[in-house]
Amino acid sequence: MPFDVGVDIGGTNIKVGLVDARGRVAHRRRLATQARRGPRPALERLSRAITELAGSRRVRSVGVGIAGLVDHAHGVVRLPPNLPGWHGTPVKAILEDLTGLPVSVGNDVNAVTLGEWRFGAGKGRRNLFCLTLGTGVGGGIIAGNRLLLGANHAAGELGHTVICANGATCACGARGCLEAYVGARAIAERARRRLHQQLKRLAGIRNQLRMFPGHAEEPSRIHALVKDRLAAVTPREIGMAARAGDKLALELLEETGYFLSLGIANVVALLDPELVVIGGGVSRIGRPLLRAVRRQVLARIPVFSGRRLEIVLSKLGPDAGVIGSAGLSRPAAA
Amino acid sequence: MPFDVGVDIGGTNIKVGLVDARGRVAHRRRLATQARRGPRPALERLSRAITELAGSRRVRSVGVGIAGLVDHAHGVVRLPPNLPGWHGTPVKAILEDLTGLPVSVGNDVNAVTLGEWRFGAGKGRRNLFCLTLGTGVGGGIIAGNRLLLGANHAAGELGHTVICANGATCACGARGCLEAYVGARAIAERARRRLHQQLKRLAGIRNQLRMFPGHAEEPSRIHALVKDRLAAVTPREIGMAARAGDKLALELLEETGYFLSLGIANVVALLDPELVVIGGGVSRIGRPLLRAVRRQVLARIPVFSGRRLEIVLSKLGPDAGVIGSAGLSRPAAA
Repeated sequence: MPFDVGVDIGGTNIKVGLVDARGRVAHRRRLATQARRGPRPALERLSRAITELAGSRRVRSVGVGIAGLVDHAHGVVRLPPNLPGWHGTPVKAILEDLTGLPVSVGNDVNAVTLGEWRFGAGKGRRNLFCLTLGTGVGGGIIAGNRLLLGANHAAGELGHTVICANGATCACGARGCLEAYVGARAIAERARRRLHQQLKRLAGIRNQLRMFPGHAEEPSRIHALVKDRLAAVTPREIGMAARAGDKLALELLEETGYFLSLGIANVVALLDPELVVIGGGVSRIGRPLLRAVRRQVLARIPVFSGRRLEIVLSKLGPDAGVIGSAGLSRPAAA
Repeated sequence: MPFDVGVDIGGTNIKVGLVDARGRVAHRRRLATQARRGPRPALERLSRAITELAGSRRVRSVGVGIAGLVDHAHGVVRLPPNLPGWHGTPVKAILEDLTGLPVSVGNDVNAVTLGEWRFGAGKGRRNLFCLTLGTGVGGGIIAGNRLLLGANHAAGELGHTVICANGATCACGARGCLEAYVGARAIAERARRRLHQQLKRLAGIRNQLRMFPGHAEEPSRIHALVKDRLAAVTPREIGMAARAGDKLALELLEETGYFLSLGIANVVALLDPELVVIGGGVSRIGRPLLRAVRRQVLARIPVFSGRRLEIVLSKLGPDAGVIGSAGLSRPAAA
C-alpha cells in the first residue's frame, strides 16, 4: 500500500507522518523547527527525516501544511505568522529538489479541513466549514466537494471577521474580530476577570458570615486547578471545571459560545454548509462548549423544515494537521 | 440566434425578457403579479406572455428568479418574503407543463449574480461576490467558476450576517444584522435623524444670529429635494445631494459605507473573492458610496503585495434580474 507523507510545520516543532490511504498515521516523527536558523536547514533536516521514515516503503507524495498565506499553486509561503523568516520561501521547489518526490504546500487550516473531510468528522459531506479554535481562530471551506481557496488562496479567515463594530481590539490591529472574543487569550482573559470578581465577592460574604454564619458560596474549581495562580488559567482548566459542573466555568463557556455562535451563524448565512466541524486546541473543552454553541447558533439562523446543518467536534484531533497535509496533493474529490 | 427567456418575479410585478446569447434583452414585457390571487393564475398569465414574446423565435429555455429560499434542483419556492402565498409552489413543474419548455428556477439574487458574472461587471472572473443593496440586502457567490449554492441552496445571505453583537434589531428579529445598518430603511432612518438634528441646530444658530449677524450654515440639500417632508427621504435623495457635494449627505454615505465595509470585509476574509459587485436599488447612489466603501474595506483587510480585490458597481442595472434568470439553466461555466 502506498503512503503519503504529511508534514505540519509550526513555529516550534515540525511533525512528520507516514499516512496510509485510509488516513491513519503509520509512523511519525517530530523535529525542532529551530525557526531562527531560517528555512533552509529546517527543510534539509525535514528531507532527511522523510527519507528515514519512508525506508523501503513506497511514498507517492509529500504534503506540507504551514500557517500563513500560502500560494497553493506554486508552494510559496507568505507572511507566516509563526515563522517570519520564512516569508517568500519556495517550500515546494526546495523540498522537491531535496526529496525527489512531488510536494504540495498549503495553508495549515486548509490541510486540517481536507483531513476532516476525507477521514474525519466531515466524511462524505459536500459542503462543510472546519474551524480551528486556538490562540488563532482559522477556518477552511469545502463547497460543492472542493476546497475553496479564493482568488488569493486566502479564504476561510473566520478569526478576522467582525462580529462587533468598534468592538474589542484584535492582535491583528483591527477591532471587533471574532478572534478577539473566542481566541484562547480572550477566553483566558475573561476567565481571569470573572474569577477575580468572584474572589472579591466571596471575601465580602465571608466578612458578613462572621456575624451571620451560614452556607457560603463555593469558589470556582478553576482556582484549585491553577493552584490559585490566576495568570495560569487557560481554556483547558475552564473545560475541566465545566465538565465537573462548575457554575462559573459553565457561564464562561456560555459566553464564549455566544460569541462563537455569531461567527458560525455568519458562516452559515454566507456559505450554508451542512456541517461545521470545530477543531483546534480550545475545542478540547469538548461537549460543554459544543452544547452552548449549538443552541445559540440554532437560535440565530432561520430554521426551515428539512434544513441540513450539524455542528460537531473534530475527529482527528492533534493528528489532523499531519493527516490533512498528506492529502494536499489531491485537494478535490473525484 | 436562439433566445432564453428570463423572468424576474417580484411582489408587485413580473418582468419577462427575451435574452440573446450576448445577454441583451431583445424584447420585454411586464405583468402585474396580483400576489393575492396566488401562484396558479400568475403562472398562467406568465406562460401566455412567454408564448407571445417568443412568437416564431427559437427559445431554448426559461429561467425564473424569485426572492426566497429556492430549491434550485427541483424548482420549488419556499418562504418567499414578498409572496407568502407561493410557499411550496413547484414553479418549475407548473411552468414546464404550461409552456412545454425546460424551466429552471432560482433565487433572484443568485440570478443577478449569474448575470453580472456572464455579461456584466464580473465577466471573466473566477471568484466574485455580488451584493444587492435595497430594502433587503442579499448576496450571491461565484467561487472557482461556479455558483455556490450551499447545502440548502441558502448561501449568500449577507444581509443577515452579524456585524454588531447585540446591535440594532433587524426585520428578521435577530440583532446586529448588516441589513439593519445598510438596508434602505436603515439608511433613510439615519438620514431623518441627522436632518432633524441639523434643523434644531440651525434654529438655535438663527436665534443667535439675530443678535450677531454673520454667515449662516446652509441646511442640507436633502431638505429641498424632499420639499421639507422628512418622511419622504430615501437613499435616492441622499445620493443626489451627495453627488452635488452636500456635506451632510456625504457624512451619511461615509457612515453607511463604514457599516457596509464591515460586511464586505467579512466576505473578503471568508471567501477571498477577486471582485465584489455592488448592485440593487441603493447602489444607484453610485460613486460617492462606492468611494466610501472601497476606502474603508481596504483599511480593514490585510493588504499584501499582489492582492487581487476590486470593488465595483453593477453593470446590468435594473435588467440584471431578467438577464441573470435567463442563464439559470446554465449555472456553471464550461
